[in-house]
Amino acid sequence: MNSGNEHTVKAFDTDINELRGMVAEIGGRSEQAIAKAMQALEKHDLELAKQVVEDDKIIDDLERRIDDLTFQTIALRAPMADDLRELIATFKISGVVERIGDYAKNIAKRVPLITQSKTLGPISLLPSMSKVASELVRDALEAFARRDADLAEEVSERDQIVDDFYTSIFRATITHMIENPKTIGEAAHLLFIAKNLERIGDHATNVAEMVYFAAKGEQMPERDRGDSPTDIWDDAEVKS
Amino acid sequence: MNSGNEHTVKAFDTDINELRGMVAEIGGRSEQAIAKAMQALEKHDLELAKQVVEDDKIIDDLERRIDDLTFQTIALRAPMADDLRELIATFKISGVVERIGDYAKNIAKRVPLITQSKTLGPISLLPSMSKVASELVRDALEAFARRDADLAEEVSERDQIVDDFYTSIFRATITHMIENPKTIGEAAHLLFIAKNLERIGDHATNVAEMVYFAAKGEQMPERDRGDSPTDIWDDAEVKS
Repeated sequence: MNSGNEHTVKAFDTDINELRGMVAEIGGRSEQAIAKAMQALEKHDLELAKQVVEDDKIIDDLERRIDDLTFQTIALRAPMADDLRELIATFKISGVVERIGDYAKNIAKRVPLITQSKTLGPISLLPSMSKVASELVRDALEAFARRDADLAEEVSERDQIVDDFYTSIFRATITHMIENPKTIGEAAHLLFIAKNLERIGDHATNVAEMVYFAAKGEQMPERDRGDSPTDIWDDAEVKS
Repeated sequence: MNSGNEHTVKAFDTDINELRGMVAEIGGRSEQAIAKAMQALEKHDLELAKQVVEDDKIIDDLERRIDDLTFQTIALRAPMADDLRELIATFKISGVVERIGDYAKNIAKRVPLITQSKTLGPISLLPSMSKVASELVRDALEAFARRDADLAEEVSERDQIVDDFYTSIFRATITHMIENPKTIGEAAHLLFIAKNLERIGDHATNVAEMVYFAAKGEQMPERDRGDSPTDIWDDAEVKS
């Protein structure tokens, strides 16, 4: 803050606290969206799935309000250096969290299309995968709230578990498709759900990287993503 | 701009022109990335695919430079109202365009995994789909450069063509999988490529919506997405 005016400083603190509260809220709602979408999938609960889709509008609105307050704060308080960086981090993180909500919504939208989940073997791995992905989202936001670079680094490392789940589910689903051609249509939706969860893990890692950078002033070291037979180039976003 | 100082006004104009040039550049590079990724896929050109993956770093850097210049401009020039909105639009659009580059990169990464494209019938629809998606990106950025709300609205309408391609390719691929179980693994990558192109169309529409809002001060009317047998809820992001 470049102003010595006490009133402006307090007003800035009020704004930044409100923004942090809103980021916590959008984070909590996105986590809930993942949990509800997965519950809807497991119980084939179309009402719950529909609710996740509708509730995504609340997440979108919240993101818009965070954007508005961020830019209003920049325009009115003219923060410098550290404070500006804090605002930018808040703004960017809320954008990533909004996309996490979109992935949960995408999962919910596929619920009506999966009607024979009992015959879709690999679907049984999804709840565990979703649990890990959801914990990454929670911990990334916790790291942001506490400005905890260590926790942020740990989130990035644990994303490997989500990636490994994805690789397993992808392979198991392809095998399942070959053995059960009648279920291919539904199994394809299963692939997309697993991909959505994998992307949620990636986005939690993005948040963690932003937290790390804000705390340490340098990029998080690249994690060793290990070997994968289909891991042809360094960046392993598409592994199978 | 709230400052009557001529020097500051000129400095602001210089910044905003530089930003607009950078958005044009990131847009052009993303379009090229789509074209090259598709060319690599058609010719199974692994070198070209690898180049697309590597060049994505240039797009990422460009986005970072746009972010930096945007926030530097806000902090140093303290723009108000219209100018601030212009900066926010530039900033948000560059973020969406960077993600379009990511989708192109994701397509390029699957090139090594599709080795028998001649036996994958539905792959023949991808070049046409990609052409429409790529034109949407170009026209959305053209609408931004010209602040042309009519062109923006047209982009949003034409995204329906990309969605229809996606639905066709999804169905044709599932049928192909059922009839040719040996190609299921490769065909699954084809589904993801089609999904990436569909998302590129969505993101071009996002840019168009931002342009429309910036020009008209109101949200673009929702387009009628038509009926689809799997289109259970209003928002048709997941249609098949």
